[in-house]
Amino acid sequence: MANISVLGLGAMGQALAARFLQQGHSVTLWNRTPGKAGSLVAKGARECSSAADAVVSSDVTVICVLDYAASNSVLDGAASALAGRAVVNLTNGTPAQARAVAERVASLSAAYLDGGIMATPPMIGSDHALILYSGSKATFDAHVRTLEALGAATYLGADAGLASLHDLALLSGMYGLFAGFFHASALVDSEGIRASEFLKLLGPWMTAMMGELPGYAEKIDSGRHGVNVVSNLAMQTASLQNILTATREQGVATYLLDPMLELFRKRDGAGHGNEDISGVFELIRLKSRGGS
Amino acid sequence: MANISVLGLGAMGQALAARFLQQGHSVTLWNRTPGKAGSLVAKGARECSSAADAVVSSDVTVICVLDYAASNSVLDGAASALAGRAVVNLTNGTPAQARAVAERVASLSAAYLDGGIMATPPMIGSDHALILYSGSKATFDAHVRTLEALGAATYLGADAGLASLHDLALLSGMYGLFAGFFHASALVDSEGIRASEFLKLLGPWMTAMMGELPGYAEKIDSGRHGVNVVSNLAMQTASLQNILTATREQGVATYLLDPMLELFRKRDGAGHGNEDISGVFELIRLKSRGGS
Ligand SMILES: NC(=O)c1ccc[n+]([C@@H]2O[C@H](COP(=O)([O-])OP(=O)(O)OC[C@H]3O[C@@H](n4cnc5c(N)ncnc54)[C@H](OP(=O)(O)O)[C@@H]3O)[C@@H](O)[C@H]2O)c1
Ligand SMILES: NC(=O)c1ccc[n+]([C@@H]2O[C@H](COP(=O)([O-])OP(=O)(O)OC[C@H]3O[C@@H](n4cnc5c(N)ncnc54)[C@H](OP(=O)(O)O)[C@@H]3O)[C@@H](O)[C@H]2O)c1
Repeated sequence: MANISVLGLGAMGQALAARFLQQGHSVTLWNRTPGKAGSLVAKGARECSSAADAVVSSDVTVICVLDYAASNSVLDGAASALAGRAVVNLTNGTPAQARAVAERVASLSAAYLDGGIMATPPMIGSDHALILYSGSKATFDAHVRTLEALGAATYLGADAGLASLHDLALLSGMYGLFAGFFHASALVDSEGIRASEFLKLLGPWMTAMMGELPGYAEKIDSGRHGVNVVSNLAMQTASLQNILTATREQGVATYLLDPMLELFRKRDGAGHGNEDISGVFELIRLKSRGGS
Repeated sequence: MANISVLGLGAMGQALAARFLQQGHSVTLWNRTPGKAGSLVAKGARECSSAADAVVSSDVTVICVLDYAASNSVLDGAASALAGRAVVNLTNGTPAQARAVAERVASLSAAYLDGGIMATPPMIGSDHALILYSGSKATFDAHVRTLEALGAATYLGADAGLASLHDLALLSGMYGLFAGFFHASALVDSEGIRASEFLKLLGPWMTAMMGELPGYAEKIDSGRHGVNVVSNLAMQTASLQNILTATREQGVATYLLDPMLELFRKRDGAGHGNEDISGVFELIRLKSRGGS
């Protein structure tokens, strides 16, 4: 069993602390605004009145606050106590923010592991929770058993920005999926068909279409978008145009899919109509990595 | 075994005809430009020199041409032969186009079944093919065994526009999924991570996130977007803003997810921040069906 401090007792910090307690760890708490530790203290946690006190009480300090501005101000308060200790920051942010904090923590002679929580607070500790980590491999290895109690733990590399990068990328994928679902549901709703009813068709269809992703990923990785004889970009540009025309005819807003058609047209217009639609990737990717 | 005519021998029409032949049906063919029936004729099909001749040869006539303008011109040629016959039109179009053809065919005293093929030509006859039908239930019932040889056959209702509506909606969902995948892949690519490697995380994550759709569908159907205490629209607006800021920092274009953030902000700004994100549906749906 470990000694763990949790700094930040919002919805997520409380869920993390509760799970550590449930696993039998010795848990020390701190929150900017005191008085949020009540039910956790009743379950055996100890509340400190300063972040620095909490840090010195434990082998590892988990920070989970609103954003990186908040985690920076938590680190301000804990700075004097950090030398030789390990920090796991599960606050959400960007790769650049994570790297800046990693540098700062390293300059204070502490180990830094960044993390991205792919779960809501009620999911913490369940089979459905995934937490991505990057930064100090030694810290990850030393505490992986403890961290796995929160959710599946995936270590992505020494660069502290990687967890955030993957977190943001997974959420992007999710928002695309949701956007498609909202558009599709609005189309059928325009004729009085219930979204729940339609989902019986859409669900299996989306699952089947996920089967296209490995092929697109290969094309993206090679930068070669092939010649597609059954369903190339030119055909799919016509098809998506038809979908958006029909969407408008149905009185439904086309917002969510307009940019996809714009990219299809742009790529088709640039002479790539006989290739696969994965070619639109070249229009959004970081140019210096080979975009054309 | 049935007598079937197939009008239109593009990539899809040929796949349909080949599958009918393989099932042992008696197949009659016609295409605007002659000479495309070669390999099918070698397998026992008969080619006609007019659409009307093909129609009178069979119990049921399947049309599969480029678009509705094309299927209208095919019907012009076949009009004199249609009375008392059944037409299954598997050409892609909009609900409005399907309904217009249905009226026209009805005025010629023929039965009309419209269809939407959710498959590419090589998938015809496989477990992965799905074909949606709407219009004449009698035609569907009379030929369902024959049609099932092409792919799973789902009948959606007497309104001939429904197959097209569902077809377009399924494709919309797919394009949203693909858009999310492209954005996510561009984010990780900006740091040199391969899309194929990242897909090992993204695939299971997207599958898990599909689990959110039934809950959103219920909220969409009831028009009540609840109070979400763990991850409401205001929180997700901040999160999506963060994703797009990071996307820009990474040198990746934000196109594909810009409209989703715009809708989140608009709905949040209208006082729905404590509700679920499914509320953005109200901003794209057909207003006369209760949008606010
Ligand atoms: N909730 C989710 O579904 C979810 C899912 C995945 C990731 N996350 C991430 O987890 C982190 C925490 O989220 P949450 O849901 O716990 O948020 P929350 O319930 O809003 O709690 C915010 C926490 O941050 C603290 N805080 C804010 N500004 C601060 C500052 N300047 N100095 C010190 N502490 C400050 C708050 O302290 P006070 O009590 O003093 O205000 C509170 O403990 C966020 O980065 C979030 O993106 C959340
Ligand atoms: N390919 C796919 O992956 C796929 C998937 C699902 C649905 N579909 C749909 O299936 C339908 C056919 O697609 P396809 O792939 O077979 O297309 P295709 O290979 O381009 O063939 C087009 C067919 O339409 C005919 N045509 C075009 N204009 C015509 C006109 N004015 N009058 C008579 N015939 C005309 C062509 O005849 P000529 O030989 O004389 O030019 C040809 O037989 C389309 O609606 C398509 O959206 C295709």
